[in-house]
Amino acid sequence: MRLARIVLIACTTTLLMFAGSAIAQGQEDGTDVLHQIAVQLFAPVPAVVENEVNPVTDEKVELGKMLWYDTRLSLSGGFSCNSCHNLATYGVDNLPTSLGHGWAIGPRNAPTALNAALHATQFWDGRAADVEEQAQGPVLNPIEMGTPSAEYAVERIASIPTYVDLFAAAYPDLDEPLTYSNIANAIGAFERTLTTPARFDDYLEGDLTALSDVEKEGLQVFINYGCAGCHNGPAIGGNMLARFGVTESYWEATRDFVTIDSPTMTMDVGLFAVTHDENDLYVFKVPSLRNITRTYPYFHDGSVWSLADATQVMSRVQLGRELTEEDLGKLLAFFDSLEGEIPAYALQLPVLPASTETTPRPEFR
Amino acid sequence: MRLARIVLIACTTTLLMFAGSAIAQGQEDGTDVLHQIAVQLFAPVPAVVENEVNPVTDEKVELGKMLWYDTRLSLSGGFSCNSCHNLATYGVDNLPTSLGHGWAIGPRNAPTALNAALHATQFWDGRAADVEEQAQGPVLNPIEMGTPSAEYAVERIASIPTYVDLFAAAYPDLDEPLTYSNIANAIGAFERTLTTPARFDDYLEGDLTALSDVEKEGLQVFINYGCAGCHNGPAIGGNMLARFGVTESYWEATRDFVTIDSPTMTMDVGLFAVTHDENDLYVFKVPSLRNITRTYPYFHDGSVWSLADATQVMSRVQLGRELTEEDLGKLLAFFDSLEGEIPAYALQLPVLPASTETTPRPEFR
Repeated sequence: MRLARIVLIACTTTLLMFAGSAIAQGQEDGTDVLHQIAVQLFAPVPAVVENEVNPVTDEKVELGKMLWYDTRLSLSGGFSCNSCHNLATYGVDNLPTSLGHGWAIGPRNAPTALNAALHATQFWDGRAADVEEQAQGPVLNPIEMGTPSAEYAVERIASIPTYVDLFAAAYPDLDEPLTYSNIANAIGAFERTLTTPARFDDYLEGDLTALSDVEKEGLQVFINYGCAGCHNGPAIGGNMLARFGVTESYWEATRDFVTIDSPTMTMDVGLFAVTHDENDLYVFKVPSLRNITRTYPYFHDGSVWSLADATQVMSRVQLGRELTEEDLGKLLAFFDSLEGEIPAYALQLPVLPASTETTPRPEFR
Repeated sequence: MRLARIVLIACTTTLLMFAGSAIAQGQEDGTDVLHQIAVQLFAPVPAVVENEVNPVTDEKVELGKMLWYDTRLSLSGGFSCNSCHNLATYGVDNLPTSLGHGWAIGPRNAPTALNAALHATQFWDGRAADVEEQAQGPVLNPIEMGTPSAEYAVERIASIPTYVDLFAAAYPDLDEPLTYSNIANAIGAFERTLTTPARFDDYLEGDLTALSDVEKEGLQVFINYGCAGCHNGPAIGGNMLARFGVTESYWEATRDFVTIDSPTMTMDVGLFAVTHDENDLYVFKVPSLRNITRTYPYFHDGSVWSLADATQVMSRVQLGRELTEEDLGKLLAFFDSLEGEIPAYALQLPVLPASTETTPRPEFR
């Protein structure tokens, strides 16, 4: 993974160096070089994030959406996937870190579920390969949904005949369609449809009027400063891990901006906690900037509430430079163009099937 | 209120006595007397529960729906109205009693918000006059949404420009449209649209084929046993208070059926806690039976999970008789016909407006 990361950074850096001079030249001869560079660095979101491992079908998506909104995947019956990844608020809970079972407060900010399927890896430290693997985590986490075991989760869902039928329809080739892995698989299929086309996509697809002048200037600042070195691809991020705090400690830098402490605020070592490799100290996944205007508070610890402050922190600790007020304003304008449309069908709450006498009851323990 | 209650019971009892013989006679001469009696005892749900105090407008309903789903009405940012009155599960959380701020567990079962506007009074003890008054309660309850004051709730909402505009549009004649009272008023307007037409309504409106034979037999049992003495009107309940446990203590009776204890299970004195009048001991609002198949667990303490058990308890403690298995089966069939359709627009999650720098932050304290 490390080699791939270095190669990606090297390629992007070369492109960015080319971009800076090409844009300047393009401005002189009237061609729209900015657009040409942008389509190389970024890509429009697809309607569905297809993959080979989990082909997306209507049956899986319908089932996955029901599971997404079903609080019976939590021991208490108080939490669904949507509790922390609320689609009414762009796939986040807008909390520094999330509330979980027993009023536990999580260690890291809940990332948005929107466009998450576009990411190369999942979780802030990239420890899950895809949304299907990720979805297995929170259900069983004792400080998130608190379900005691995979078997218990399956017992709950399998006690509801409608779900049994829906799993059989979604996984027609399997002898045992209703498994914990397939609960997560169906939720993953649903998440693969949660992409949010925005004005920036119209621009990438050739409508040069989709962005205002100041938004285009912001895009140019974004490229010129080197933000796109990490925040690139269709999700404008999400496709690599990087050290948070290259030229300065993020911990020191964010202290200037933190207005309330995240309740669990301690310096998070990032990927190091998984690998115990010193090179992985403070290494986190580069988040997507799609809908960044709406996914406050920012960073893995949710410590910074203002996008202007967060942008300034990033410039200081990753690039070693202070943004001018003018450039900051342009960047914020560009970010506005990344605010996309949430698929309407995903926002339509499903009417969930009733529990039965054999459904294990909610427990608050 | 007491006099009205006695008069209502007396009238209904007379009607029921008439009903018993008339149905028998109707069966003999072939006229559909059951239907004639039913339309006198019950009524179809209206699409909107109109009233004079809070005329329902599209602007109020749109605003009320947004507030309904907005977790910023809770101090923690973890709860919205929909957390306990989840429209995906027929307006309830299917918990014995609800989870609230700080993992507090409430003293009474969350009643469904569906058809609640049809009720004569609100809360289990009828202490609020209407849905507008009711909606003011949970936001400020320290063990529910935990918002410290009405002023704080208004400060949160008023910090969001979109809401300021929507209140101005919903209350165009008011100098100060965004008040705590109007937050609840708009939510109330939304609730006035949450009615759930069911097959039983088709039957009441004249489609005699809308109920199966066994469902009609269940309706007849429902009338003959005297259930309709309390459960009548458009909500099939909700229009009176009554002592729970007339011929036997409900507390003793439910002990036969309780499968897990409600965490806060103590004998609830009902309206007595408000009035300290001995006549109000164990007096609760008669709940609506609409969607009763889906609003488990049952009773004010959510102690009984099975509708069959709950029906048997009611027969024993209110009417002093044991239901035969056959009659119980018919009643359960009738209850199926009360399961209605939740308005689709109400299930469409609104995309909520972003907080601003002045929005008071979520607090877990």
